[in-house]
Amino acid sequence: MTAARPVARQDSPPPVDAEPVASHEEMVNAIRMLAADAVQRAKSGHPGMPMGMATVATVLWTRFLKFDPSVPTWEDRDRFILSAGHGSMLLYSLLYLCGYEAITIEEIKRFRQLGSNTPGHPEYEPQHGIETTTGPLAQGLGNAVGMALAERLRNVRWGDDIVDHYTYCVVGDGCLMEGLGHEAISLAGFLKLNKLIVFWDDNRISIDGPTSLSTHENQLARFEACGWDAEVVDGDDPDAVAAAIAKARVSDKPSLIDCRTVIGKGAPTKAGTEATHGAPLGEEEVAGVRRTLNWPHPPFVIPDHILAAWRTVAQRSVPARQAWEQRFSALPPAKQAEFNRTSRGKLAPGWQAPLSEFKRKLATERPSWPTRKASGEALEILTATFPEMIGGSADLTESVFTKTRSTADIKPSDYSGRYIHYGVREHAMGAIMNGLALHGGFIPYGGTFLVFADYMRGAMRMSALTGQRVIYVLTHDSIGVGEDGPTHHPSETLASLRVMPNMLVFRPADAVETFECWVIAITESDMPSCLVLSRQAVPAVRTEHESVNLSARGAYVLREAEGGERQVTLFATGSEVHIAVAARTLLQSQGVPTAVVSMPCWELFDIQPEKYRREVLGPNWPSCVRVAVEAAISPGWDRYIGENGVFVGLKGFGRSAPGHILFSHFGITAENVFNQTRAALARRAHLLRPRDKRIGIDVVG
Amino acid sequence: MTAARPVARQDSPPPVDAEPVASHEEMVNAIRMLAADAVQRAKSGHPGMPMGMATVATVLWTRFLKFDPSVPTWEDRDRFILSAGHGSMLLYSLLYLCGYEAITIEEIKRFRQLGSNTPGHPEYEPQHGIETTTGPLAQGLGNAVGMALAERLRNVRWGDDIVDHYTYCVVGDGCLMEGLGHEAISLAGFLKLNKLIVFWDDNRISIDGPTSLSTHENQLARFEACGWDAEVVDGDDPDAVAAAIAKARVSDKPSLIDCRTVIGKGAPTKAGTEATHGAPLGEEEVAGVRRTLNWPHPPFVIPDHILAAWRTVAQRSVPARQAWEQRFSALPPAKQAEFNRTSRGKLAPGWQAPLSEFKRKLATERPSWPTRKASGEALEILTATFPEMIGGSADLTESVFTKTRSTADIKPSDYSGRYIHYGVREHAMGAIMNGLALHGGFIPYGGTFLVFADYMRGAMRMSALTGQRVIYVLTHDSIGVGEDGPTHHPSETLASLRVMPNMLVFRPADAVETFECWVIAITESDMPSCLVLSRQAVPAVRTEHESVNLSARGAYVLREAEGGERQVTLFATGSEVHIAVAARTLLQSQGVPTAVVSMPCWELFDIQPEKYRREVLGPNWPSCVRVAVEAAISPGWDRYIGENGVFVGLKGFGRSAPGHILFSHFGITAENVFNQTRAALARRAHLLRPRDKRIGIDVVG
Repeated sequence: MTAARPVARQDSPPPVDAEPVASHEEMVNAIRMLAADAVQRAKSGHPGMPMGMATVATVLWTRFLKFDPSVPTWEDRDRFILSAGHGSMLLYSLLYLCGYEAITIEEIKRFRQLGSNTPGHPEYEPQHGIETTTGPLAQGLGNAVGMALAERLRNVRWGDDIVDHYTYCVVGDGCLMEGLGHEAISLAGFLKLNKLIVFWDDNRISIDGPTSLSTHENQLARFEACGWDAEVVDGDDPDAVAAAIAKARVSDKPSLIDCRTVIGKGAPTKAGTEATHGAPLGEEEVAGVRRTLNWPHPPFVIPDHILAAWRTVAQRSVPARQAWEQRFSALPPAKQAEFNRTSRGKLAPGWQAPLSEFKRKLATERPSWPTRKASGEALEILTATFPEMIGGSADLTESVFTKTRSTADIKPSDYSGRYIHYGVREHAMGAIMNGLALHGGFIPYGGTFLVFADYMRGAMRMSALTGQRVIYVLTHDSIGVGEDGPTHHPSETLASLRVMPNMLVFRPADAVETFECWVIAITESDMPSCLVLSRQAVPAVRTEHESVNLSARGAYVLREAEGGERQVTLFATGSEVHIAVAARTLLQSQGVPTAVVSMPCWELFDIQPEKYRREVLGPNWPSCVRVAVEAAISPGWDRYIGENGVFVGLKGFGRSAPGHILFSHFGITAENVFNQTRAALARRAHLLRPRDKRIGIDVVG
Repeated sequence: MTAARPVARQDSPPPVDAEPVASHEEMVNAIRMLAADAVQRAKSGHPGMPMGMATVATVLWTRFLKFDPSVPTWEDRDRFILSAGHGSMLLYSLLYLCGYEAITIEEIKRFRQLGSNTPGHPEYEPQHGIETTTGPLAQGLGNAVGMALAERLRNVRWGDDIVDHYTYCVVGDGCLMEGLGHEAISLAGFLKLNKLIVFWDDNRISIDGPTSLSTHENQLARFEACGWDAEVVDGDDPDAVAAAIAKARVSDKPSLIDCRTVIGKGAPTKAGTEATHGAPLGEEEVAGVRRTLNWPHPPFVIPDHILAAWRTVAQRSVPARQAWEQRFSALPPAKQAEFNRTSRGKLAPGWQAPLSEFKRKLATERPSWPTRKASGEALEILTATFPEMIGGSADLTESVFTKTRSTADIKPSDYSGRYIHYGVREHAMGAIMNGLALHGGFIPYGGTFLVFADYMRGAMRMSALTGQRVIYVLTHDSIGVGEDGPTHHPSETLASLRVMPNMLVFRPADAVETFECWVIAITESDMPSCLVLSRQAVPAVRTEHESVNLSARGAYVLREAEGGERQVTLFATGSEVHIAVAARTLLQSQGVPTAVVSMPCWELFDIQPEKYRREVLGPNWPSCVRVAVEAAISPGWDRYIGENGVFVGLKGFGRSAPGHILFSHFGITAENVFNQTRAALARRAHLLRPRDKRIGIDVVG
């Protein structure tokens, strides 16, 4: 048994009071027992991983990790990411033992209960010491890569005195099997993120049983092939673990530490088996753990000397934090303000002025750009205005218009730039953007084709769940893509994104709307946005300057009905708005008062006051015919057009042909909208009886 | 320049007529020119890859590939998968040159035009020589792994005489950067799929520019770490390529052949650059290609001797095919019938009997199983009945109940089993299942948690697009998951799957419905299905045996209103149907005639005759109050309940707590359904004026 070392080695002098004496093993076993007991009490959870990784975590947290429980969000803290999020009791145990205010023993007892601070999987709450939400495997690893990159990006901007920390990440076998894991590993190695240190909980057990059921991959060789250092250690030998960490900290590459561990270590009959993975051990086995670990204390009682030992080492970095604060306060006030502003994700004062000017110019010049191009032009001014924006693309830079004059490439060991070539790695792009946002200091945006949102949906969900301002630039948004065919036509992708909670999906109609949507995405600091953009050119529909951001209400009347009460409302988004406008012209020419509603963002429209919503939607059937036009499938539109509404769009997948031919083929044309609307008006004429005077209208038949 | 070798080396004797003489280089250049000319004519496409890989493809197709253009679907043909599907002109050129009937020179001229046989990306059409749809990167690689596995599975069942072929796959840098690629590579290596040979078009160029912008991965080392053979060759040295293929064919591992190529080879100024990747070369550059390749012939004219050389070598495997047919016809008729039946995906005659018996038993015994458990029980009888079913799970076997007594594990070099431990590799599971189905002979199903459908959505889309019978078993389908929390609660996942075209999404209510849905999934031979299943137990709601499959109509009246005209229709799916039934009891006890409609499959309901749909939906507001109950978010329900309908479900993400507490917390209870319905009835009472006699009802208020 190794003696405890409550003395910091790296960043701080020895603590003043070295009195409490607890063995290292006692400190480790405190974690094991808390995990076993909390899961047992909750009747649910994953005890095996915390028990197996307790030694590694103890070594890291007591000897290396730079943190201060009294200032959980200190900007230069090391980041600790539990990518294997099911082992949440490992993190909660550490946070409790170290004295984080939000994670009390009462909260440990309420593990996995409604409203507790200790949910089943870690949920992002930096004030509680929880850096990100994890559980869906490999997302945490991707976040860690993003955080390690954010650290390097901020370091080059602020210097070692202000930003200089490590990112530590614990992964399980699952994180390493997921494809997302490989994407993240490959990019981290390429970018030489040397302050990223990953611990692999190599317990050779997955849920189905031994990992040899499905893999015999040589992980060390794989990591080395990706440009990492990789080393194997006995995960229960604290000095070996410490030596590996010390070595990894001075490497010029990211490092994998392959920790040979025993899942459920301490469980007398179940250790080393999948039985400890995802279920309580059972009262009897937990009693056995107490015997095995020589831990006579009742559940949730940590003896004073052990708790004191933990609380003492948890103070290790207080001097480092104080020293950092001194250095920070020596910065010029403007620099301090800028650092704090970007850390907190606030926009610089006065940001609106240049943007308003740009919008006025667009409304005047009325460019007929593809909205992807409009997005690129918007990004030119936005990236010039907001230095905290970090761009990128999954190998589609020229197609998605994400690179600007302000965003030089970020390169291996050169982090002065602002543009990431993610490679063909959409899922990692999403997870890394989440990490950049979670770390603080940056507003990440990244582009790919809309249809490939499917490849990164797991990460997009995490953006929404953690409420991060991550901006997805999704171009080539319909059959307008043309010849590339149904593999590249996102018929249903738009609908699939609109069902994601806590995410804004924008589909702007022209350059002005594109710019308005970008501004909303930037200013919505606590949720992700998708900008869904056309490949093909679209005419300007916003032909007069409006100082207010009309897109901010989600939908608005773009053209009001003329010559009487509204008989028809045409709803459209994106590249179909100009088609609706043309169809309105045809209808008006036949004396049918017709309004066009542009709906760039359903989510924002849905939260408008009822009065505004009614005004925009207008009367419903049979008073008024509602028609939706969108080059996508219909689900979702029912809520606006109702069961008697008309939908002009797709019924399924696309075809390979030039885009304009596909629009004709599928009938997404002004003529067809006109014809379909006339048919609906005729049905209505048949339905309306003469005595319905309040609706009395001239029906086009 | 190497002389052409129109003589088969492996499977067939020399052709009878060896007269046509064309150089190997001429045969290669025919591909390059067809690609350059077709893309130029289409004004769209990807010439660089076919031009760069022309030599490798020519060597493979003229010396090794076992195929017969006159019998494209010969079961024992080698499979050729163009995972880098943007290079579709490589495949179309080969198919035309070899004489596939569907790919004429006229079709080459119609490249990327509406209705042609030569769409922008290859679209599954085995009669045309197109084995799968590719384009979304790495999907083809995953399919190839599935096909190579299918070959081994069929080989062990039918012997070398009947099934013994290779699977060749061409991948680009993108396929190798995608996480899906790694999952597939890792599993192929683990399973020792030695008849899988992958060509990497290693041209060091991606869309953004040199691949060194985003990767420096040592691919050979990575593949070796995953249990592959890997070798580098000059992709323009035909003998080196041939030697590598010959070596790979006798390896006991899958093989990677790293083909060093020049993208756009032959283009005088653009070769070796990203400018050749995804756009026509331009008239001038194409003229330059003609000069560089010494190809004086006009576009789409292949000189007779070159075409003849191709057509001759394309006959190489005719004797092998004939010999195979002889061996096949020597099988006992019953064996022949069984082979043909499984190849064509037909079910064995008489399959219904044991299933009907089982269903009757369920209706009688009324088990209160979780529907995941009901699915497991259904699978016991289904896998016993259908030996062509191949199961598996992404490391959640015990949780998703996918393993049965009939499905022994498939192991490295032992393919006698029927169960695949996919590891924590959801995306590869989907792509490999697609490959198993596309190959023919098997009905694949695989399980994971519903929320992780996000991780494999790219592959699920390909199941739908190719119309393959792939069955996704998606359990833990709501907040009923409980303590694992929002990362594991698929609040929006159900809605996101329901928007996928050409896919059936089932959410059955109890054991009987689960079984009915499984039977539909098995019998729907040309589309994928999702079975969305509860973690928690649910009481039986189908308490009387019905010989017809009620779920086959998608929705049906489970309980009719009693005591008068229907005043309320409660719609529900899955684990909320019993809640609706309980709410109905409360409403009926208050004298409100209330029907319950169970809607296990929206897609099937939506295609029922209008009359049936109206009967099931019943009258709408204000004649009748429609209420939907589902432990998920609402999008999609509007189409059934309309704007005056009531939705009882979620508004966003879940929370971590025991499942039954969450159902209370979110108000998904019979009491709340009752209360919400009463409130709606009260609103209606306020709305209905006395003179509306036709609706005249007693309103509960």
